[in-house]
Amino acid sequence: MSEVAARGALIERLATICGAEHVLTQGDLSAWESDWRGRRRGKALAVVRPANTDQVAQAVKACAEHGAPIVTQGGNTGLVVGSTPDESGTEVVLSLQRMNRVLAIDKANMTVTVEAGCILQNLQQAAHDQGLLFPLSLAAEGSCTVGGNLATNAGGTQVLRYGNARDLCLGLQVVNAQGQVWDSLQGLRKDNTGYDLRDLFIGSEGTLGVITAATLKLYPQPAAQMTAWAAVPDMERAVTLLGLAQAHLGSGLTGFEVMGQLALSLVARHFKQLRVPLYQGHPYCVLLEQSDQESTEHARQALESLLERAQAQSLIEDAVVAQTQAQARELWHIREAIPLAQAEEGLNIKHDISIPISRISEFVSHTQAMLAREIAGVRLVNFGHLGDGNLHFNVQAPEGQDARHFLQTQEARVHALVYGSVQAFGGSISAEHGIGSLKVEELAHQKGPVALQMMRAIKQALDPQQLFNPGRVLHL
Amino acid sequence: MSEVAARGALIERLATICGAEHVLTQGDLSAWESDWRGRRRGKALAVVRPANTDQVAQAVKACAEHGAPIVTQGGNTGLVVGSTPDESGTEVVLSLQRMNRVLAIDKANMTVTVEAGCILQNLQQAAHDQGLLFPLSLAAEGSCTVGGNLATNAGGTQVLRYGNARDLCLGLQVVNAQGQVWDSLQGLRKDNTGYDLRDLFIGSEGTLGVITAATLKLYPQPAAQMTAWAAVPDMERAVTLLGLAQAHLGSGLTGFEVMGQLALSLVARHFKQLRVPLYQGHPYCVLLEQSDQESTEHARQALESLLERAQAQSLIEDAVVAQTQAQARELWHIREAIPLAQAEEGLNIKHDISIPISRISEFVSHTQAMLAREIAGVRLVNFGHLGDGNLHFNVQAPEGQDARHFLQTQEARVHALVYGSVQAFGGSISAEHGIGSLKVEELAHQKGPVALQMMRAIKQALDPQQLFNPGRVLHL
Repeated sequence: MSEVAARGALIERLATICGAEHVLTQGDLSAWESDWRGRRRGKALAVVRPANTDQVAQAVKACAEHGAPIVTQGGNTGLVVGSTPDESGTEVVLSLQRMNRVLAIDKANMTVTVEAGCILQNLQQAAHDQGLLFPLSLAAEGSCTVGGNLATNAGGTQVLRYGNARDLCLGLQVVNAQGQVWDSLQGLRKDNTGYDLRDLFIGSEGTLGVITAATLKLYPQPAAQMTAWAAVPDMERAVTLLGLAQAHLGSGLTGFEVMGQLALSLVARHFKQLRVPLYQGHPYCVLLEQSDQESTEHARQALESLLERAQAQSLIEDAVVAQTQAQARELWHIREAIPLAQAEEGLNIKHDISIPISRISEFVSHTQAMLAREIAGVRLVNFGHLGDGNLHFNVQAPEGQDARHFLQTQEARVHALVYGSVQAFGGSISAEHGIGSLKVEELAHQKGPVALQMMRAIKQALDPQQLFNPGRVLHL
Repeated sequence: MSEVAARGALIERLATICGAEHVLTQGDLSAWESDWRGRRRGKALAVVRPANTDQVAQAVKACAEHGAPIVTQGGNTGLVVGSTPDESGTEVVLSLQRMNRVLAIDKANMTVTVEAGCILQNLQQAAHDQGLLFPLSLAAEGSCTVGGNLATNAGGTQVLRYGNARDLCLGLQVVNAQGQVWDSLQGLRKDNTGYDLRDLFIGSEGTLGVITAATLKLYPQPAAQMTAWAAVPDMERAVTLLGLAQAHLGSGLTGFEVMGQLALSLVARHFKQLRVPLYQGHPYCVLLEQSDQESTEHARQALESLLERAQAQSLIEDAVVAQTQAQARELWHIREAIPLAQAEEGLNIKHDISIPISRISEFVSHTQAMLAREIAGVRLVNFGHLGDGNLHFNVQAPEGQDARHFLQTQEARVHALVYGSVQAFGGSISAEHGIGSLKVEELAHQKGPVALQMMRAIKQALDPQQLFNPGRVLHL
């Protein structure tokens, strides 16, 4: 059979499995073929949109028989080019967007079971409608899917209290490379029967199997939430404030974000309707969120008493507490607007790093000084989830310079400088975004040979044909 | 080389690596060769006690070259015969008890790094000395080791709030089957760089590698703890009370144990010095523990208000709140004395199961009735960590019957009945104790072929020579 005929035969078979209208090969497929940040445009053999797990299993078997690689895709909001096809035209995009149902909420068990294509925000809403909380929250929540969240072990703003996507998952349904369905959706909080397959699939970025459904933990909704914004003199005191807040509020501390002055000044410059408090004259601001099981009054007292202590210890220079939910939302909105403000300012070089919290201050001083020394006028847009040791340590071209030219000439060098420093401080080059295809080379460089060898052995054991997302995460 | 000579050569090589005094082949080795509950007595080729990770790596290489299987052992307190040698005399016991140091506490990062042989209680104490909390807590904490806790993903009484051993671990140091050292001890709270090797080793019960060190999460110490003991009319209302307590106390609810009347009456019978409250005339009692970041007064108010609400909703029939730390300890002591009281009563058949919390009540009614129907006079000692859906659903011989004879004739049948029911209710046959060698056959029966096949593929990929704990967890 010629290559063209073989391709035609596979498309026909996929059409038989999923229905011809759900196997897309014509027209504008850029929504599936381009990544979120528009860094790469690939070409799919076809975009297949199965309706259920059985169709996924059949489609996987068909692709395996035809030797066609599978790129699984959810909301396609990833930041590391992990869920779009390469340019070869040989990869099948398996889009789970039609498998978007909330299957069951078990209130007594505090669990929810969803299909992988369920939009994160819809899951949050379904939990909320039952008086419960699904705490995973991140900027793309209106379009990202739960399957993608799990495949990339997504983080976000509530990790400090509730953990990453991994920590919120009790079980999965997965189609493996043999087209078999493995199911662990019972909703058990303890299960020590053999190897932790669940956590192996979580974070494997579509390279070991297709996550088709998940059972996730729910939490009681807090009775009240309070949000504060504090100006701190330096990163070291931001870290000390974090420790004080944890000791004072315990698990009531649900958010602790840090934002550098330049990051906030970009928001003030590009989103004039947002009133950014306290950033002028202070190197960093911190956004604290407290969740309380008791009452607004109790929450306010605890937060105000924390801020008083912090002021007495000279950890903060000034602070405001949101008086209404609308004010709290506005403070969060400022935090979330930083990446958009960066984009308005021009192309920039992104990092998603983590550092042991005790070394963050030293890391930032060291790395900032090094960058300033190496690249005159370089601007550091430093912000992130300090409570998790996770910084988005982004680099913007010097004021007035052409950003595209800056990236072309400096991106590799900036990455090398920052990642070298991350390694020296015992950090990670990907705290929450994953590896995808963007960071494969860097991972091979940083991860260490023993870990890479074990990862390769696992990949070969579970996906000997290299069916799933070949070349992403690791080269074989 | 003859078998005897080959054995001698291996022992000599191990003696060169670890020192002759740390390679035991003579005398009473029962502390390493018999399991905790005395169910099996094996025979080791040698007991090797390395002093550090490098010695572990060298010992693994030596055993690999000689084809000698390795049984890694910590405190040897496991309940499923997973860390003692078989009777063949060919297996090397690798005891990590000498590697018992707390290596570092990082207060700002809220982490501790320990060697695998560190006794759990020593770790708890080291954290406490720094004003911090390491929350893993279980009956064997005075002798079990952190490495064993991680290898078996241990549970215990604080899982409801802080999770299993897995949830408390940020990174491992592991010697793999090639004798290489893999290290992820940086203490990062977020790290999405490739497959989750950490969680694969955690819970693999020594079959994939040797855990030699770990970096673990620490928490703020609570400002106050309150303990209550409540009588509930049935399991259904115990589950409803759990939901109410979670909604009311949020993450302040750090313990929720349920104890059946028979379980408590055995404690009253065999430990007359312990005054067991409220059990006469009530089918179940519940032990609630609340941890508070604020004050004893605040904790007391929250707990008493919860108990009032519960009484108003007829969820509890009576309750006492411990007035002092000594009273609280005594209530916990009663809970912890149940397995000992069972042993005093005579040999019994143990289960360690989990069930979706929403189905526990139905499971208990159904299974209890079935056992009563099938085996006249059988006594169910039902207790456990209800907050995690985890019951120790143990079976005692009918009053007055010879326990040894009962076990000989009925153990297999009781297991089959209970595990059949567990499967029907979507539960797990091992919630927190693991598989070891005791439950291998049962796991093969219950786990499902797809999961078993993936587990076997992983075992073969990481340990192709079947060096580590062969035959435990799964047969190949």
